[in-house]
Amino acid sequence: MKKNNRIGALVDEFTSNPCRLYDSKYFCEKYDIAKSSLSEDIKLVNEVFKENGTGHIESSSGVGGGIKYIPGISAKRLNRLQEELCAMLEDSSRLLGGGFLYTSDIMFDGRIVDGMARVFASRFHDLGANYVVTIETKGIPLAARTAALLNLPLVVIRREAMYAEGSTVSINYFSGSSDRIQKMSIAKRAVSQGSKAIVIDDFMRGGGSLKGVIEILGEFDIKVEAIGVAMVSREPEKKKVAEYLPIVYIDEIDEERHVILARKNASLTED
Amino acid sequence: MKKNNRIGALVDEFTSNPCRLYDSKYFCEKYDIAKSSLSEDIKLVNEVFKENGTGHIESSSGVGGGIKYIPGISAKRLNRLQEELCAMLEDSSRLLGGGFLYTSDIMFDGRIVDGMARVFASRFHDLGANYVVTIETKGIPLAARTAALLNLPLVVIRREAMYAEGSTVSINYFSGSSDRIQKMSIAKRAVSQGSKAIVIDDFMRGGGSLKGVIEILGEFDIKVEAIGVAMVSREPEKKKVAEYLPIVYIDEIDEERHVILARKNASLTED
Repeated sequence: MKKNNRIGALVDEFTSNPCRLYDSKYFCEKYDIAKSSLSEDIKLVNEVFKENGTGHIESSSGVGGGIKYIPGISAKRLNRLQEELCAMLEDSSRLLGGGFLYTSDIMFDGRIVDGMARVFASRFHDLGANYVVTIETKGIPLAARTAALLNLPLVVIRREAMYAEGSTVSINYFSGSSDRIQKMSIAKRAVSQGSKAIVIDDFMRGGGSLKGVIEILGEFDIKVEAIGVAMVSREPEKKKVAEYLPIVYIDEIDEERHVILARKNASLTED
Repeated sequence: MKKNNRIGALVDEFTSNPCRLYDSKYFCEKYDIAKSSLSEDIKLVNEVFKENGTGHIESSSGVGGGIKYIPGISAKRLNRLQEELCAMLEDSSRLLGGGFLYTSDIMFDGRIVDGMARVFASRFHDLGANYVVTIETKGIPLAARTAALLNLPLVVIRREAMYAEGSTVSINYFSGSSDRIQKMSIAKRAVSQGSKAIVIDDFMRGGGSLKGVIEILGEFDIKVEAIGVAMVSREPEKKKVAEYLPIVYIDEIDEERHVILARKNASLTED
C-alpha cells in the first residue's frame, strides 16, 4: 500500500474507532511496514487531526501502551458551535410557558450533538471512567455520542422500571422543575459495584435529577467523575450538584417580553 | 499542503460529515488545488474507503451535484457483526421470563450500534427521507447514529406527551407484547406535512408499535420509506407491518430449556 493510501486508511481507522488503544504491531502487520515508517505516518496523521481541529493522537510506550485517537474540537469550531446554540436558543418561538423551552430539535441534531460530545470526550477521556450514564430521554443522543467517542458503554437510567430491564434499583427524588417527587430506575446488570461514571444530560435547572443520578449510582458505590450538561439555566443560582460542565447557559427566560437570553460557557475556549 | 496530508484531511472531513454534499469548489479553495488534482485525490480517498470497507464517495456533476461520502459496511464486517450479535443474544442469562430478553447492553454498545447504523445508512441513503424516526427508549442510540450517518434530523416519538414537547398529536395502539392498549405522542413542531421518514427500532415482535408509528406519522401525511430493525422475532409469523429490514432474527426463546436461538438476516450479505 502506498503512503498516500496508508495515511487515508489510518485516518479512517482512527476516526471509526475513537479512544481505542492500538498496539503498533497491529498497523505494522496490517500495512507491512517497519515501526519507523509507522511512527512517521502517525506523526503525519496527528498533524492532520490538529490542523482539522478534530483531535489528536496519543502514543505511549511500554506495557499497556499503544496508539490512541482522542477526538476533540478546535477552539474556533467550539466558539462557532456555542454561538450557533445561543442563537437557536434565543429564538422566542421556543417559549412554551412555565419557563419551559422546546429544545428537542437541538438535542436531536446530529451535527450539534457531535460537536458537544467532542467537548465532553476531549475533557473527560482520561478519568478512567467505565460508562457514560444519562437519564432518559432527551439527552440520550448526546450521551450515546459521548460514549461512542470515549469507547465506553452507555447506561440509560429509566423513569419507570421496565420489565425488559430485569431487576432494577429505584429511588425517588424531588424534581424542582416539575415541583414533585419523581422516580428513576437503573438495571442492576447494567452497572457493577465500585466503578466510575461520567454523567451527561441535556438540561439542568436546579440539579435535582442530576443529584438523583449521583444518588442512584451511589447505591452501587459508583463514583461520578464528571458531569457534562448541554444547557444550564442561570436560575436558581444554587444548584444541587457542585461540579458540572455546561456548553451554554440560559440566563433569562422572560415570557412577558418574549425574550430568551443565552450565553456561551466562555471558560471552555479559554483553556 | 502536501498530498499526504490532503488525503488524510479529506478522509477526516468526509468521515466527520457523512452524507454531506460538498461543492468541489470548497475543497479546491480550501487546499488551493486545481480541479484535476482534487479529482485524483477523491479517487484515492474513494479507494481507501472501499479497501477499509467503510463506505464510498459519490460524485455527480451539474446543478445540485457535488461530492458526498456514503457510509457503508463491508460484507465481511457485517457478517462478523451478525455472528457476534447472534452469539450475544444466545447467552441464556438474557432470559427474563415471559419471552423477554435483556438487550440494553447490545443496544447501548457504540461499536455494535455503529455497525448496524451503517447497514441502514448504506441501504436507505437514496430514499430522499427528511428524518429518521424512532419510538423511545432503547432504539434511540441506533436511530440517532443512523440519522447522523444520513445527515438527517432525528425525531423521537414519546410514550407520554411531555410538556416540553409543546403541542403534540397522540394515538392509542395495541401492543401485542404487553397485551394492552398503549399511547404514543409526537411533537407537532418536530415534523412537517407531506414529508418522508425512515423508521428505526431496536426490536419487533408482532409489529404493533411500528404499525402505530406508521399511523401517527400518517396523521401528518408522512410517508414511511423504509423500516430498519435490529432484532426481529420469528414469532408471530404474521407481522402488522409489511416491509422491514432486520439485522438478525430471534428464532426461538425456550425458557424451560434455557435456550435462545438467533440467526443472521442472510439476505444482507447476499446483495
